[in-house]
Amino acid sequence: MFETPMTVVGSIVNDPQRRHVGDQELIKFRVASNSRRRVADGSWESGNSLFITVNCWGKMVPGVGAALGKGAPVIVTGHVYTSEYEDRDGNRRSSLEMRAIAVGPDLSRAIVTIQKPGYTGPVAAQNPVDTTAAAPASDTAADAATTAEPASLTVSA
Amino acid sequence: MFETPMTVVGSIVNDPQRRHVGDQELIKFRVASNSRRRVADGSWESGNSLFITVNCWGKMVPGVGAALGKGAPVIVTGHVYTSEYEDRDGNRRSSLEMRAIAVGPDLSRAIVTIQKPGYTGPVAAQNPVDTTAAAPASDTAADAATTAEPASLTVSA
Amino acid sequence: MFETPMTVVGSIVNDPQRRHVGDQELIKFRVASNSRRRVADGSWESGNSLFITVNCWGKMVPGVGAALGKGAPVIVTGHVYTSEYEDRDGNRRSSLEMRAIAVGPDLSRAIVTIQKPGYTGPVAAQNPVDTTAAAPASDTAADAATTAEPASLTVSA
Amino acid sequence: MFETPMTVVGSIVNDPQRRHVGDQELIKFRVASNSRRRVADGSWESGNSLFITVNCWGKMVPGVGAALGKGAPVIVTGHVYTSEYEDRDGNRRSSLEMRAIAVGPDLSRAIVTIQKPGYTGPVAAQNPVDTTAAAPASDTAADAATTAEPASLTVSA
Repeated sequence: MFETPMTVVGSIVNDPQRRHVGDQELIKFRVASNSRRRVADGSWESGNSLFITVNCWGKMVPGVGAALGKGAPVIVTGHVYTSEYEDRDGNRRSSLEMRAIAVGPDLSRAIVTIQKPGYTGPVAAQNPVDTTAAAPASDTAADAATTAEPASLTVSA
Repeated sequence: MFETPMTVVGSIVNDPQRRHVGDQELIKFRVASNSRRRVADGSWESGNSLFITVNCWGKMVPGVGAALGKGAPVIVTGHVYTSEYEDRDGNRRSSLEMRAIAVGPDLSRAIVTIQKPGYTGPVAAQNPVDTTAAAPASDTAADAATTAEPASLTVSA
Repeated sequence: MFETPMTVVGSIVNDPQRRHVGDQELIKFRVASNSRRRVADGSWESGNSLFITVNCWGKMVPGVGAALGKGAPVIVTGHVYTSEYEDRDGNRRSSLEMRAIAVGPDLSRAIVTIQKPGYTGPVAAQNPVDTTAAAPASDTAADAATTAEPASLTVSA
Repeated sequence: MFETPMTVVGSIVNDPQRRHVGDQELIKFRVASNSRRRVADGSWESGNSLFITVNCWGKMVPGVGAALGKGAPVIVTGHVYTSEYEDRDGNRRSSLEMRAIAVGPDLSRAIVTIQKPGYTGPVAAQNPVDTTAAAPASDTAADAATTAEPASLTVSA
């Protein structure tokens, strides 16, 4: 009744596998996410790890194949499920899998360049001062942005 | 008692604003996400839109500033809250804001190159056949991957 | 392309409103979630608040109407969007809304009794000792549970 | 660096186990979630299933123990991780576990009564007409609610 959504921030721990399944392309890789949290004395404690197999189908294949490999820091979001299978010794096992909806390199841990035709990259970063000057009420101007949004809805998202 | 997590897949609809707040750097931008869903006759129906202001602090600034601008397709994940403020006419207003934990370009809608030193990019994509050959049991071998994982936990995630 | 999922843990802050919209019933209420987080010295700091209007349609109405009122501690999960409207003075405003998928009282802050015919309540709580005795390998027996699961899939979820 | 949040809507498929671990109480149970989704011809297709072991610690124990048993329809939210262990034959296995933050019966599939002292249940449901009368602008009055919210922040959430 409910596809379970999930987002994982972690790193790819194997070489992505690319292949055809029927008439669709698939890239499959495994992500590990290691957590930490602040404990009572204020220090950070290393927490649990999560492992998940991520499946990227169809239109995700060109972008994922061009950018991601073992070690890449990623954000992945999609729907998760339990995959049941038999291992080589005939034992029943299960693993956590995701059908990805969106995948990207994590920009807090990577520097990337976007090459897609039609997207020209950050203007703001090139002219930080001018940008700020052009939006003097930026602290409190979410309302201004809201007013403009019906027009910006033409942006495909 | 609970910071509310959220992940949004959408596009940046304004020029990101970069500035200093105290001794920290901040990049702020607005994301729109337009949904669609399949209805009873099997066709897709355009759904609701979500707008959110995303705040990227500290270590996120270099990567976000180098890659993202207006129009960029993104995935953002973080904690969300309601920001209350007065607009220029003195009316109380509120907007949805996120403190980002991770942000990335959405690889289903963009081709990117990862440039961070130390991450060498996808080996798999260069040798798709060899990679598959090196992992012959890949279909059912999540168990093999699991066995190998204690070692791969040294990968920072 | 993506309905944005979200889960909020908080309390209902108004009297739920129940009415008909076309041929469907709707219960609408507002939830506030106040966060806190541990800071560098180990103490807890009060964080941001999130406000959201929750819409419960159709099959959710009987259960929600029977149990929830102002002040109730709740978990709500669903898809979120920005609702735009004009206030009484003709100003354009927006608010965060959720179309709920599931709603429940938060059992960490409430004691409830389940009355639905067909669900008989917790056996385990009545015989905690016997239950534990019947599952001696409970610490490491997730594998046993996994083996049993193809049968338990007949449970509707 | 990131505890992975997750929300699951499903049913409890075993008898919850309650025990002491050190000086803390724990209730542990397993949840199955079966998805379905609309496909190209508009019909619903049964999808994948997700299984997860849910751990409820400390303050969650009284409420969970009093209300939930095998078969109960639930919403659970918390942080997830991979638990690694050896089964009785010495094979390494892993399972998906959650440390719950909030758990509740799913009111779209159950009728419940809240008994916690201090929460008096739904007034609105008893007087739906009066409630509506008291909030005549309810359709568009999210702004009114917003104005009132600084006061209602005293509600613990």
